[in-house]
Amino acid sequence: MDQTQRLRDLGEFGLIEQVRAYLGGASHVLIGSGDDAAQISTDAGSYLVSTDLLIEGRHFRRDWSSAYEVGSKAAAANLSDIAAMGGTANALTVGFAAPGDLESVWALDLTRGIVDEAAKVGAVVVGGDVTASDTIMIAVTVMGEATRPVRRGGATPGDVVAYAGRLGWAGAGFAALSRGFRSPKKAVEAHRVPQPPYAAGPQAALAGATAMTDVSDGLLVDLGHIAAASQVAIDVHTDRFIVGEPLTSVGQALGVDPLHFVLSGGDDYALVATFGGDVPDGWTVIGTVADASGESGAGVT
Amino acid sequence: MDQTQRLRDLGEFGLIEQVRAYLGGASHVLIGSGDDAAQISTDAGSYLVSTDLLIEGRHFRRDWSSAYEVGSKAAAANLSDIAAMGGTANALTVGFAAPGDLESVWALDLTRGIVDEAAKVGAVVVGGDVTASDTIMIAVTVMGEATRPVRRGGATPGDVVAYAGRLGWAGAGFAALSRGFRSPKKAVEAHRVPQPPYAAGPQAALAGATAMTDVSDGLLVDLGHIAAASQVAIDVHTDRFIVGEPLTSVGQALGVDPLHFVLSGGDDYALVATFGGDVPDGWTVIGTVADASGESGAGVT
Repeated sequence: MDQTQRLRDLGEFGLIEQVRAYLGGASHVLIGSGDDAAQISTDAGSYLVSTDLLIEGRHFRRDWSSAYEVGSKAAAANLSDIAAMGGTANALTVGFAAPGDLESVWALDLTRGIVDEAAKVGAVVVGGDVTASDTIMIAVTVMGEATRPVRRGGATPGDVVAYAGRLGWAGAGFAALSRGFRSPKKAVEAHRVPQPPYAAGPQAALAGATAMTDVSDGLLVDLGHIAAASQVAIDVHTDRFIVGEPLTSVGQALGVDPLHFVLSGGDDYALVATFGGDVPDGWTVIGTVADASGESGAGVT
Repeated sequence: MDQTQRLRDLGEFGLIEQVRAYLGGASHVLIGSGDDAAQISTDAGSYLVSTDLLIEGRHFRRDWSSAYEVGSKAAAANLSDIAAMGGTANALTVGFAAPGDLESVWALDLTRGIVDEAAKVGAVVVGGDVTASDTIMIAVTVMGEATRPVRRGGATPGDVVAYAGRLGWAGAGFAALSRGFRSPKKAVEAHRVPQPPYAAGPQAALAGATAMTDVSDGLLVDLGHIAAASQVAIDVHTDRFIVGEPLTSVGQALGVDPLHFVLSGGDDYALVATFGGDVPDGWTVIGTVADASGESGAGVT
């Protein structure tokens, strides 16, 4: 190990890869690090768990989003990880660090946002920790359960690729806000508070989905994770997308092809899955799974 | 709500109290916020969960502790919360935020510390999140299981109070380090890496403990939590303690009664419990539970 190497040189994914080498496994860890959530067996049953950090200035801005919106989004990002396993969330814990001069009402509105978003799937905040810090940091951990967890590694050549939810709306909203616009309202609101299709996760599991993940980093990046884990090639057919009106208008205003938001925009928490048989209602087919023929990955045709 | 109130005026416990008002409950939450861990029922079985945040400069200092020691302590604090419910931890998630110029090896040593401490009870790190931040922040969430969770609220007048593990060692070490000393070694090491009596938690549950918690904030403060939850008065008999050598020598060097460390020092993660019957091997009786007669609390006689 190079003792002088810095985190910024290694990068987030590089660090995670090196950390994983230390983790090891255990017979009670049914699914470990590297999927949307882990699955742990207990003496009776099992549970899913996933965790996310949000840092002010990196994951949210107080001048762009209200505390309630930040809370809703923090919860949504986590609840979506359980949906992406085909599961349903049942509990969350929240770690909250903030400067002492923050208005108390901000922390309470944040809590309300988390609690209300969790209530959409019947999950409850069951614990947490509070501490002082120079920067606002929110650590959310979500637990849940799934009858048949759907992993990233099960896609097979011949499967179709489909998605549920929205693609590109939050990305278009972020692009608009970044240029100083506060509209179109639908795109900006999609950035502030995503609307993940929570129920579509268990629905896809029940319908026999072979692989699934949520779109947090962008459709092609996240399909790339499925492709790598499944050792397949994924072809996305761009003529299959219905590009929503807010994306077209942000695209026009900023001189960007709205398809860019669909393929690369994150934070909508759409679900993408592969199916060997019928695709359930509400899912839109956008591509196919093929042999990797050497190199796995997701691309556009 | 006073819109101008700041977090520093409300304080950590004040914020937690206000936040709790929003949390609500659900039939699947067997134990909610306000104990060492929450307990959630699933379709098959149940799990325990607890979470802690550590911030550089507040919970650890890089010039006092190695990354490996910080990781061990972060894990210990969380694993202890599951032991304090009479349970055994099985999985952890870790959120890690740090500046880009931090040496990668620090993050990897931290991971090793967490992994090795977790291995002491058979628990595994199953997931996490990594992000950039100006300050190092570590968010650990631990899950576990218990056949019969022991809560804080079950102490009854006539019970005896007993503890397992160490009391005051970490506090004495912290006091020594704060004055610029690097010794006595045993106290300083106790501050850097606590040695919680993990097995004593399930042991106490099996022996019929009526209430239990871990000593993270100081014996009298944490017994106060049991007293409040149980609506009883707890009397601690100070002549029952065997004050260890490192405490005596720090006390002499700093001109402090070593009993102060025993009663008020945190971070050793001893377990304290109340028993209606026999006290198991390895536990030391230090007090009695009495009627609250108006006001619950823990005091010294």
